[in-house]
Amino acid sequence: MSRTIVGVMGPGRGASREVSAAAHELGRLIALQGWVLLTGGRDAGVMAAASSGAKEAGGITVGILPGADTRGASADVDIPIITGLGQARNNINVLSSSIVIACGMGAGTAAEIALALKAGKHVILLHCGLEAAAFFQSLSQERVFIAEQASEAVTIAAKLLGAT
Amino acid sequence: MSRTIVGVMGPGRGASREVSAAAHELGRLIALQGWVLLTGGRDAGVMAAASSGAKEAGGITVGILPGADTRGASADVDIPIITGLGQARNNINVLSSSIVIACGMGAGTAAEIALALKAGKHVILLHCGLEAAAFFQSLSQERVFIAEQASEAVTIAAKLLGAT
Amino acid sequence: MSRTIVGVMGPGRGASREVSAAAHELGRLIALQGWVLLTGGRDAGVMAAASSGAKEAGGITVGILPGADTRGASADVDIPIITGLGQARNNINVLSSSIVIACGMGAGTAAEIALALKAGKHVILLHCGLEAAAFFQSLSQERVFIAEQASEAVTIAAKLLGAT
Amino acid sequence: MSRTIVGVMGPGRGASREVSAAAHELGRLIALQGWVLLTGGRDAGVMAAASSGAKEAGGITVGILPGADTRGASADVDIPIITGLGQARNNINVLSSSIVIACGMGAGTAAEIALALKAGKHVILLHCGLEAAAFFQSLSQERVFIAEQASEAVTIAAKLLGAT
Repeated sequence: MSRTIVGVMGPGRGASREVSAAAHELGRLIALQGWVLLTGGRDAGVMAAASSGAKEAGGITVGILPGADTRGASADVDIPIITGLGQARNNINVLSSSIVIACGMGAGTAAEIALALKAGKHVILLHCGLEAAAFFQSLSQERVFIAEQASEAVTIAAKLLGAT
Repeated sequence: MSRTIVGVMGPGRGASREVSAAAHELGRLIALQGWVLLTGGRDAGVMAAASSGAKEAGGITVGILPGADTRGASADVDIPIITGLGQARNNINVLSSSIVIACGMGAGTAAEIALALKAGKHVILLHCGLEAAAFFQSLSQERVFIAEQASEAVTIAAKLLGAT
Repeated sequence: MSRTIVGVMGPGRGASREVSAAAHELGRLIALQGWVLLTGGRDAGVMAAASSGAKEAGGITVGILPGADTRGASADVDIPIITGLGQARNNINVLSSSIVIACGMGAGTAAEIALALKAGKHVILLHCGLEAAAFFQSLSQERVFIAEQASEAVTIAAKLLGAT
Repeated sequence: MSRTIVGVMGPGRGASREVSAAAHELGRLIALQGWVLLTGGRDAGVMAAASSGAKEAGGITVGILPGADTRGASADVDIPIITGLGQARNNINVLSSSIVIACGMGAGTAAEIALALKAGKHVILLHCGLEAAAFFQSLSQERVFIAEQASEAVTIAAKLLGAT
């Protein structure tokens, strides 16, 4: 039977120390839940931090890479999926995730949140900023959740997955 | 030499009468500028209205369709590009457009704006709402413009294209 | 109403003089039929030759480019579609073409023929070699045609389009 | 460190009993090597048989699905990657695999072999037929191998992976 996959999306460049720490903790807690962690796979920012956290906790990590080979992949990605699609791969990230947790903000992350909502997924925002929260809740009141901490994001995800 | 392509992105379902009228006017003015109009190609909402406006003014229209055949394409699309990619086709919409004009708002449109910014494109927002304006300007102060009317959006686009 | 689009697929590198001349003639004859020419869009081999032939005859040319910007596009492409998908764009080439004409052979061209057959399209082979003819006819007896010359390929295409 | 991923590509519909048995054995032997099995993920033909074989031997299975949700996925796929790309996902299958083993033949499989060669991958053909062998070897003498049995295909793959 297929494993539960939870996606953590966030900026590669420009992730603050606070955002990277939260991403690491998200990865760790997702692995402890027994879920597979899915990220954009690159050795940068939130992707790298979340994958590292999941591996520390003994989890399985999938990375959906934008390039056409493994260059730039995080060493903490167990299963690199090489798409060669550039940013079009963002849609795969969200379709493959049962729940999307956005950690930090940037144009790529914004695209992933929007695509997740378009696909009918639940999205949990962590350290995304007030403008993002206001905007994405204006797009979907019921499917956008705001978390203050990694642990709260994972608790919300667990409830949503249990309810499905 | 390749033609200048300007993209108009907006919701298929739930476009208000005001948004549809603005999209129609955008299509008309884009055609009068001699630019090729690019949309998501479907026979719905902003895509259909913009394509119809462009054809009324004798323009050329390209539609980047999400499905694997021509079903659901607007009859006002001269050149239907059948991607079979679903929402991953949104990235093609923005990469293929010199400028992106968003008209109205929805999750798909939000994804297109975010992908356009990720790709370094200029984006002009028309009838996108205050939350969208605040959020996308927080992502990129310099590359997001707000227009009040279709004519203003096309004037901004003309200036940006001239400056390139 | 949407225009009839005919795709010409063939190698970028390593196209012989005979193959390039045939591609140029294909482009010319396709334009004279009033069809839009679709190619992979790059300034190389069969793509460039076919686009050049079509423009000489006053036709409209579409190029479905693999990269994320216009670099490497043929100057004879009127409407460059920038996919950023690498070779995954091959499926768009065939889905968007009413008929696929393969001119010359290479791994990319072979992928396009196979994807065209998978999508239920008719494929006309010109200068593709005996092994290709034998193999693709073993995949589909009814939908693979062999032409000896560009003019024959276009005649076959015209019959197939008329019959649809 | 990322796991070694070996892809098994083959028809969904119309796989003979011999081809399905070979695919099952391929999956089993790939799992016993400690490699991750990658397939097109659907609950049909070679994809289902290979995934079932890998799970019987305790392996990990990845499925790159063409649709936009998990419908039609094989229950033996641990990690379903939902692409929503239709046949454009074939390029992801081959880019993500260190080696591609084709088992049986059809238009989709032919596209995957061609895309693998385009991407510079080694391809091992098993039960693909004489026309396919002749054609793909005409495209690439050095990177196309013919195996008579599943065990021989896996032995060739092991040698190629050791040599990398």
